[in-house]
Amino acid sequence: MPKTIEVTELILRDAHQSLMATRMAMEDMVPACEDIDKAGYWSVECWGGATFDSCIRFLNEDPWDRLRKFRKLLPNSRLQMLLRGQNLLGYRHYEDEVVDRFVDKAAENGMDVFRVFDALNDIRNVRQAIKAVKKAGKHAQGTICYTVSPLHTVTGYVEMAEQLVDLGCDSICIKDMAALLKPQPAYDIVKAIKEACGEELRIHVHVHATTGVTMVSLMKAIEAGADCVDTAISSLSLGPGHNPTESLVEMLEGTPYVTKLDKSRLLKVKEYFAGIRPRYKEYLSNITGVETEIFDSQIPGGMISNMESQLKQQGAADRLKEVLCEVPRVRKDAGYPPLVTPSSQIVGTQAVFNVMMGRYKVLTGEFADLMLGYYGTTLGQRDPEVINLAHKQARKNPITCRPADLLKPEWDQLRSSGLALKGCNGSDEDVLTYAMFPQVAPKFFSTRQEGPKNLGKDPSAKPAAAPAPGGNAETGKGPVMSTISYDVKLNGKTHKVTVAPSA
Amino acid sequence: MPKTIEVTELILRDAHQSLMATRMAMEDMVPACEDIDKAGYWSVECWGGATFDSCIRFLNEDPWDRLRKFRKLLPNSRLQMLLRGQNLLGYRHYEDEVVDRFVDKAAENGMDVFRVFDALNDIRNVRQAIKAVKKAGKHAQGTICYTVSPLHTVTGYVEMAEQLVDLGCDSICIKDMAALLKPQPAYDIVKAIKEACGEELRIHVHVHATTGVTMVSLMKAIEAGADCVDTAISSLSLGPGHNPTESLVEMLEGTPYVTKLDKSRLLKVKEYFAGIRPRYKEYLSNITGVETEIFDSQIPGGMISNMESQLKQQGAADRLKEVLCEVPRVRKDAGYPPLVTPSSQIVGTQAVFNVMMGRYKVLTGEFADLMLGYYGTTLGQRDPEVINLAHKQARKNPITCRPADLLKPEWDQLRSSGLALKGCNGSDEDVLTYAMFPQVAPKFFSTRQEGPKNLGKDPSAKPAAAPAPGGNAETGKGPVMSTISYDVKLNGKTHKVTVAPSA
Repeated sequence: MPKTIEVTELILRDAHQSLMATRMAMEDMVPACEDIDKAGYWSVECWGGATFDSCIRFLNEDPWDRLRKFRKLLPNSRLQMLLRGQNLLGYRHYEDEVVDRFVDKAAENGMDVFRVFDALNDIRNVRQAIKAVKKAGKHAQGTICYTVSPLHTVTGYVEMAEQLVDLGCDSICIKDMAALLKPQPAYDIVKAIKEACGEELRIHVHVHATTGVTMVSLMKAIEAGADCVDTAISSLSLGPGHNPTESLVEMLEGTPYVTKLDKSRLLKVKEYFAGIRPRYKEYLSNITGVETEIFDSQIPGGMISNMESQLKQQGAADRLKEVLCEVPRVRKDAGYPPLVTPSSQIVGTQAVFNVMMGRYKVLTGEFADLMLGYYGTTLGQRDPEVINLAHKQARKNPITCRPADLLKPEWDQLRSSGLALKGCNGSDEDVLTYAMFPQVAPKFFSTRQEGPKNLGKDPSAKPAAAPAPGGNAETGKGPVMSTISYDVKLNGKTHKVTVAPSA
Repeated sequence: MPKTIEVTELILRDAHQSLMATRMAMEDMVPACEDIDKAGYWSVECWGGATFDSCIRFLNEDPWDRLRKFRKLLPNSRLQMLLRGQNLLGYRHYEDEVVDRFVDKAAENGMDVFRVFDALNDIRNVRQAIKAVKKAGKHAQGTICYTVSPLHTVTGYVEMAEQLVDLGCDSICIKDMAALLKPQPAYDIVKAIKEACGEELRIHVHVHATTGVTMVSLMKAIEAGADCVDTAISSLSLGPGHNPTESLVEMLEGTPYVTKLDKSRLLKVKEYFAGIRPRYKEYLSNITGVETEIFDSQIPGGMISNMESQLKQQGAADRLKEVLCEVPRVRKDAGYPPLVTPSSQIVGTQAVFNVMMGRYKVLTGEFADLMLGYYGTTLGQRDPEVINLAHKQARKNPITCRPADLLKPEWDQLRSSGLALKGCNGSDEDVLTYAMFPQVAPKFFSTRQEGPKNLGKDPSAKPAAAPAPGGNAETGKGPVMSTISYDVKLNGKTHKVTVAPSA
């Protein structure tokens, strides 16, 4: 009997986040739900990541309402979300009670599987969220962010898996957000975790397709014992997205592995999204082929385009190569964090600053926080001299405790501030929306009654047709994390530097 | 010590044939040659296939001159070509002396490795070409066209490999022109051929990327003992093209296999062709993602778009689904030929005729020839009733001999006709050009002195800029095989049906 390989479908979350800047409207997903629900997936990722932010920032959609709709439309499916540990879906650490309440509400509104990760792989930053998921009786998936450095080893990943199991995780995800996971390490890591934690521990593998090797990595992970892999329906796959679901099904034919996916359903889902894709042309990633330079540079493609635009703003587009050389240095000084939101932006921006103003002459507030331990701990030792500079510039002491331990209870304050906003409906869900995005939520609450804005456009309409509804399409491509502005003095002149997220 | 996996680079032939309709001008390849030559490839495929036709039909380039230039520009590389057995680079069978002379001249002008195939896998159709290659002291690569049918088995492929070895082939190529080769059969076939023919027999694997599984197939073929694989530099890879060279290099890291390719050279080649690609935008394939339906339909993507346009011409675009259902039936009746030029066009067009006019009410001349054995033999038995119809309609008897055995010596006649053409330079090379393309060569000879026409366009130029030089760009996308027109009577009305090649 061949072993069944389970599949998580990414089309409703990470696929459109990676390929069309998270802009897909709920309205454009609804018609595909019945086929997705009946195709035989282990789970359907449909919430979390950047979708919450995108809903309220661009789509005038209530993310909680989206979740409840998915629950109704996918009655046979496990709903899955991506949760940034102690950051939840926002971009700072929240106090534990907020984490508990968020997880509770997500579970109550229909979420089944919580994939919980921390950008630094600091286990202390996922502990509370995992505890909350278990308490809610849901599936807690502990996540290892895969990266490559002189310090990252198979043994290290196994230790992290063991710690996640100790926290009560129901499964482990190896998350390769930058398509760095090659076939041999994929095999070695899955094999070693299975050996250390037992064959019965579920291992899920999440890879992106950017480098053109990760379909092979999925095969090798499966041969090593992986139980479930993440793919996206082919019409919204590849490039910075994921490997195609249909190809995975076909790849296994004749092997000792098989999926239980219904190919005729997959074909319908594919054809449906092939029709939707052109509506979001203006948000589509330019990258359609593969990029393998990242194996040497360690710099994700999205991060490079960000640094390029930062340099352009300062009339220094010609210094990109210097910045690209500086990134590995900064990453080393910061203790080799994986490069994923938010660490990729923090490291990339500091590299730009180093090249423009001299190495560590000016530190961004975020980079200082990273060096001082306010994001958590890193695998490598952080450079003591740079820590010292951060200490002086930021006037903060380095910490070694779990960052959230320094936070005071904040729920009551968040609740009263949230409820005071015009248009807030008084629910805890609204308070959580406000807690996550205090700058964006007020406007969203005030316009919510106008209903969702679909940014998709009829591709047959003329390019110069009516502007995108909602009026905020000007932010254009790229993920949707808040942009931060700095005023930077250079040779006596002040420069405005904005930092937007990359991955 | 890891085993070295050799690589054949396809960028100068099949990559642009598959992705930009074979339109790349020699001028646009020259600057990359030094890096290609020094990157460490086993061979560089740069000639044959549709390039010969494209040179004289669209580019006003002498294909023999192109070959001599490659010989000079790639002094350290084995030059490789694709040769259609007894068809050479044309679309009919040639008498053996013409085959000998063509191979001799190709060798004399610089060709090293001849990949020889027959669309029907009829070994008798490659025998003479392989003999000629051996006589010229060059590398003869016997080719197995991979396809899937109830009759195609691993054992069958092994038998064909053994026959090719018996003919004196220096290596075997498994050629998967439709991206049908899945990982497990890739492993099984390579393994079985090595076991039957000896470990020392070189096996090369050629796959296209269309279905999204074949990078894994390459990995499995390598694990089974394959010695050399075909890839294309990433900036002109994927879609209906091939897997990216750089990804192959990275894929093997940490495995018991390694390439000896120079990554810094590959990066230069990549960047160079990334700049060239937009110049051929109007010829670029629309397909950038993957298509897995072919696994069920057995119909290559290019063949579908061809049948679509045939149906459209007759105002019957809505009958595509019927035609798609008819193709497997026609293929079965024809003895399960692989679907590759020219069998894909012959089967596809007959399927269109069957749907439009009733099953086998009208046979195309080519389909009748196929049924009667004039293209060679097929693995499956051809349907006796359809053979009978073909016999009646075409007024020809079925044959079982090697088709070329029926041909009379033709070189002297070809030579005198060729030399009589205005602009013919009197060389045997020119006579062979004429022999290959008697309709196109006369015009080419008469315009050759005007020099090559580069159909690439500055992508920053306005779309409505000057028309493509050469004035024959109107043939548009698609491969370059001759188009055949039929006048077909349907319900008393005459319809013009044109048949163009698909793959």
